[in-house]
Amino acid sequence: MSDQTETQQGWLTNEEIEIVRGRVPIVYVEAVPVRVDDQGRITQVGLLLQAMPDGTISRSVVSGRVLYRERLREALIRNIEKDLGSLALPKLPSCPTPFTVVEYFPNGDVSGYTDPRQHAVSLVYVVPVEGICEPSKATLDIAWLTPEEADSPEVRVEMTSGQDRLLRLALAHCGCLP
Amino acid sequence: MSDQTETQQGWLTNEEIEIVRGRVPIVYVEAVPVRVDDQGRITQVGLLLQAMPDGTISRSVVSGRVLYRERLREALIRNIEKDLGSLALPKLPSCPTPFTVVEYFPNGDVSGYTDPRQHAVSLVYVVPVEGICEPSKATLDIAWLTPEEADSPEVRVEMTSGQDRLLRLALAHCGCLP
Amino acid sequence: MSDQTETQQGWLTNEEIEIVRGRVPIVYVEAVPVRVDDQGRITQVGLLLQAMPDGTISRSVVSGRVLYRERLREALIRNIEKDLGSLALPKLPSCPTPFTVVEYFPNGDVSGYTDPRQHAVSLVYVVPVEGICEPSKATLDIAWLTPEEADSPEVRVEMTSGQDRLLRLALAHCGCLP
Amino acid sequence: MSDQTETQQGWLTNEEIEIVRGRVPIVYVEAVPVRVDDQGRITQVGLLLQAMPDGTISRSVVSGRVLYRERLREALIRNIEKDLGSLALPKLPSCPTPFTVVEYFPNGDVSGYTDPRQHAVSLVYVVPVEGICEPSKATLDIAWLTPEEADSPEVRVEMTSGQDRLLRLALAHCGCLP
Repeated sequence: MSDQTETQQGWLTNEEIEIVRGRVPIVYVEAVPVRVDDQGRITQVGLLLQAMPDGTISRSVVSGRVLYRERLREALIRNIEKDLGSLALPKLPSCPTPFTVVEYFPNGDVSGYTDPRQHAVSLVYVVPVEGICEPSKATLDIAWLTPEEADSPEVRVEMTSGQDRLLRLALAHCGCLP
Repeated sequence: MSDQTETQQGWLTNEEIEIVRGRVPIVYVEAVPVRVDDQGRITQVGLLLQAMPDGTISRSVVSGRVLYRERLREALIRNIEKDLGSLALPKLPSCPTPFTVVEYFPNGDVSGYTDPRQHAVSLVYVVPVEGICEPSKATLDIAWLTPEEADSPEVRVEMTSGQDRLLRLALAHCGCLP
Repeated sequence: MSDQTETQQGWLTNEEIEIVRGRVPIVYVEAVPVRVDDQGRITQVGLLLQAMPDGTISRSVVSGRVLYRERLREALIRNIEKDLGSLALPKLPSCPTPFTVVEYFPNGDVSGYTDPRQHAVSLVYVVPVEGICEPSKATLDIAWLTPEEADSPEVRVEMTSGQDRLLRLALAHCGCLP
Repeated sequence: MSDQTETQQGWLTNEEIEIVRGRVPIVYVEAVPVRVDDQGRITQVGLLLQAMPDGTISRSVVSGRVLYRERLREALIRNIEKDLGSLALPKLPSCPTPFTVVEYFPNGDVSGYTDPRQHAVSLVYVVPVEGICEPSKATLDIAWLTPEEADSPEVRVEMTSGQDRLLRLALAHCGCLP
């Protein structure tokens, strides 16, 4: 997809996005990147270290907006490449249903998931990646942790906006919540 | 929720909604209303008869937009009441994950689901209703059909915009696709 | 179902069940009983207090074997009535798929779920109950706890055989893991 | 796993399996093998041509018993290798939950799924395969069909025991039922 097409179809000016964000919930996709063994079991979870919308530095999963006229699978691939690079080789599930839906609100007491910029409805997937993951410009680091490490108190406190809970839901879905 | 609050939080003028619809995907919820027996098995599916966005009269399921700052469960209840009346007694599932996600596009060849007004991302649920369902003003009729009847060729041709496929996915999810 | 019919269809002598248990995995169903609000959100989880196969007294969910020629929905209803009484009014989900599958083994280091009697494959469901729950003869008590209470360290230590993990998976599936 | 170990753990004599089959439901796993594109979408479904328990020749999916003390993931891999060969490179989903559960009974009017040998509870998965699939000795042929072809009337009539319905549920789960 060329930049030109993207502009026509999905990208908004900063002004436009601000107007829209105050009027309707915004569709997001999130992907919990995982490494799996040859029987499909999760061995490691990939956590990005990056600046969050609320200004904190937090461990988080891959996340991004779905553009106008963009398919969900395209949005997932695009955002995974944005955060993990173009050699990550993500294996999207054949089922299009997210394992959970998370609702982000500007104020934290509504759902426990916060985004000061907007009301977002986020479709969350667990996505095995088989290739080489390289942090992109906006990402400070990618850490690969075992499920036990990822759900440890030390890592939990490094996750804001509800990302620690989202990660626990993902591990539970895959039967590997400690 | 008072009208005043709704205006502040979620309702848009016709002009605003037109602007937004051309810029971002819009979040929808859809509910397939069902009657179940005392073991939870679907005995009947409720299909509305109503005017569709494309001008056709079609059998369809409950459908509506998620408003700004509205929770998904609130949007489901509100839209079920809008289409089935306030005595329908819907039993929302305890799991917040939709059974499928459907992507509507203005042109039909993208996903097979069409909405000439907008790009919509729709979270679809199967919702047992236990009360009295009365067609609202916008609904011409509600028909209760067995799974076999609902998936028959006669009923299929009465469903436009991909609603027949959506219904088959719902029946399959519940193990009762003929 | 009369005792006569049950004998013919599913009940085994103690000797027979011992022979079978050493040869094939046994099919179980488990139900996490919950109270939900009028939007389907879990408000309370029901935990039984009962003797476990390993001799411990543990908080646990509804559990039981699927009999020969018994449907899964019948087995769920029968075991819920066994543990919660015949007035519990369980609302089985319309989807027949369990939210998770748990594998019990005699030795605990295989899967983290243990049953000294057998290798069991357990299909686990979250089941809202709307009626009156009364502990049956084999159950010492039923406690109704909020999700936060149910996942607290105090309650976790009262659960053996992996039941605390199973409960966390259920809460996560419903989006209400703290 | 050596043959010796398998004998000790899971394999039964023909006499033993006959006794067990008349007393308890038997745990099965089934896998619908699929080819997916680089966005995870199903492009083809693999259907085996083989003799069924009822004596018919039928198109069917990968199927097999779970052995005593065998993990579900091991059983899936073992049965996929049995039917598709050891170079099939199956990618098991990271979530252990089957997309549906099918109940086979000796008589066909109970559930629509039949197996004259036994009452079986089958956990069914959609499994992408990336390698070379070669029909094993018990398999006459493997055909790779598009979702449209696989759900066509011509192919449906070649599937007995409820396998055509099971396939439709799988396609629906992945959003690609025509």
